[in-house]
Amino acid sequence: MHRLSLFAALVLAALSVAADPLPSWKDGHAKQAITSFVTDVTNAGSPDFVPPAQRIAVFDNDGTLWVEQPMYTQLAFILDRVKALAPSHPEWQAQQPFKAALEGDLATLGAAGTEGLLQLVIATHSGMTSAEFETITLDWIGAARHPRFKQPYTQVVFQPMLELLEYLRGNGFKTFIVSGGGADFMRPWSEAVYGVPPEQVIGSQIQLAFEMRDGKAVVVREPKVAFIDDGAGKPVGIQRHIGRRPILAFGNSDGDLEMLQWTTGGAGRRLGLILHHTDGEREYAYDRKSPFGRLAKAMDLAPQNGWVLVSMKDDWSQVFAPAP
Amino acid sequence: MHRLSLFAALVLAALSVAADPLPSWKDGHAKQAITSFVTDVTNAGSPDFVPPAQRIAVFDNDGTLWVEQPMYTQLAFILDRVKALAPSHPEWQAQQPFKAALEGDLATLGAAGTEGLLQLVIATHSGMTSAEFETITLDWIGAARHPRFKQPYTQVVFQPMLELLEYLRGNGFKTFIVSGGGADFMRPWSEAVYGVPPEQVIGSQIQLAFEMRDGKAVVVREPKVAFIDDGAGKPVGIQRHIGRRPILAFGNSDGDLEMLQWTTGGAGRRLGLILHHTDGEREYAYDRKSPFGRLAKAMDLAPQNGWVLVSMKDDWSQVFAPAP
Repeated sequence: MHRLSLFAALVLAALSVAADPLPSWKDGHAKQAITSFVTDVTNAGSPDFVPPAQRIAVFDNDGTLWVEQPMYTQLAFILDRVKALAPSHPEWQAQQPFKAALEGDLATLGAAGTEGLLQLVIATHSGMTSAEFETITLDWIGAARHPRFKQPYTQVVFQPMLELLEYLRGNGFKTFIVSGGGADFMRPWSEAVYGVPPEQVIGSQIQLAFEMRDGKAVVVREPKVAFIDDGAGKPVGIQRHIGRRPILAFGNSDGDLEMLQWTTGGAGRRLGLILHHTDGEREYAYDRKSPFGRLAKAMDLAPQNGWVLVSMKDDWSQVFAPAP
Repeated sequence: MHRLSLFAALVLAALSVAADPLPSWKDGHAKQAITSFVTDVTNAGSPDFVPPAQRIAVFDNDGTLWVEQPMYTQLAFILDRVKALAPSHPEWQAQQPFKAALEGDLATLGAAGTEGLLQLVIATHSGMTSAEFETITLDWIGAARHPRFKQPYTQVVFQPMLELLEYLRGNGFKTFIVSGGGADFMRPWSEAVYGVPPEQVIGSQIQLAFEMRDGKAVVVREPKVAFIDDGAGKPVGIQRHIGRRPILAFGNSDGDLEMLQWTTGGAGRRLGLILHHTDGEREYAYDRKSPFGRLAKAMDLAPQNGWVLVSMKDDWSQVFAPAP
């Protein structure tokens, strides 16, 4: 009996280790903040209890769920698309910002600002049906490789974040992506990679139009940006799409500031998290001065708002998912 | 043993009656079309099998899930709001379309057309926060009564449609509302009444803006219509919100024509349904000439598209849910 009890105790200990839902998160303040939040809002006896239907969690994508250096993945897509389309646009050889895109001249592209970027977005993201764009996106995401990690972009996603998404869903949360990137750029692969179905992906949008074309129903992507889901646009995108205020938000840059304010400004228990890229060895180290994912104001406002800074270097035992 | 077998047979028969998931649907072509569609797309061995994630079903609201006569419910809300706000707007006494709204002069309102209606929408649906608008909506929907049925509007919803929504969800479908009405007018009560959570309600939208107001995060409703989710807007709203093509669509008017075309124009097994209001006794009888929910073109195109016309009079044994 004693030996059996010892055996049972060992099995239980093993199970409890195996049952850690966040194995890539080191013990510490960040992991503790997450697990105590989830425990409290899911405990029917707690004053912080939140009914399942209201357990809405929102996640930024670039720099929060996957790598955003040395440039946003969608910008790499845009540059590749400009190259692919260039043969039908000889005028681009002499016309900015297309010339800079073709030459990979990021300094000139940067100087062209949002307006220049939007010109490239429109040239590469419109003029086809939504079904055609889905194919273009899937073909690219399957073939492209991250320049440093030599992996598909859908492999340089953060393992601790995959665990967190799964942990939240296991506790009755509905998980949404709320990204400055294009919704239709993420939707074709979001379910396979993040377990987030297309209808839970909120992002920037191009103008769409319905048409009967040769007797076939199509939705056409028009050359006009309809919505930019960044900064103050994020709470707007959330309200338009979800219609209720999230109780958990996770971002990594000043583009997530308003989403954090909107989420944690509601009544009752709330959790705001910011991923701080502190790990130049395993990933990248950047914040205030980065052209992509600049983090300054949101970090400065974190203490007074109770937002938890997650340090990639200190809080994560593993950064990327193991290759399949 | 014989007596036990008889008893078992009776129990099985009783269970099989009790297990009809659509008890308010009479046996006939419409019910048969629905159940055979659901059986086929959920049968893993069928060539028509559709994985659960792609089982997207979209429903119009006005005239499909609830009564839209003698006028759209949201128009009744608008007229009541104009009256409630009139004391702070003495100029409305002499200014159209407000004067007509205050006098209940539907002929003049009708003549003011979409432009006139949008003026009323903006005057009554903007200028407050999203939280304030939710309270206004819930207060009204709790107090208002349908003029003929003397019931709350949330009681004059169609029992057979509630059964269908539930039947589809029980078979792994995700059910969405896709309405010309305002998304934020439906969301506060859609879950309680239809079992459809706010994030699965697609509708017309007013412009929103995020603000920090006295240190509090708010989303403000601005005096501009951002999106009209009707007619050709419905496939656009579906694509923007869901990002994939539904396999089942249910509407009742020409405003649902493009949603039916988009849904049933996809590859594989699809189902399009149109509720035909043929029951002047239990509800209303109208189609081609009705100012609300006009049904002409979609009905004419139904046969060649294989859309199923559901006759309220002939296909439904019960129209409304019993009072609680």
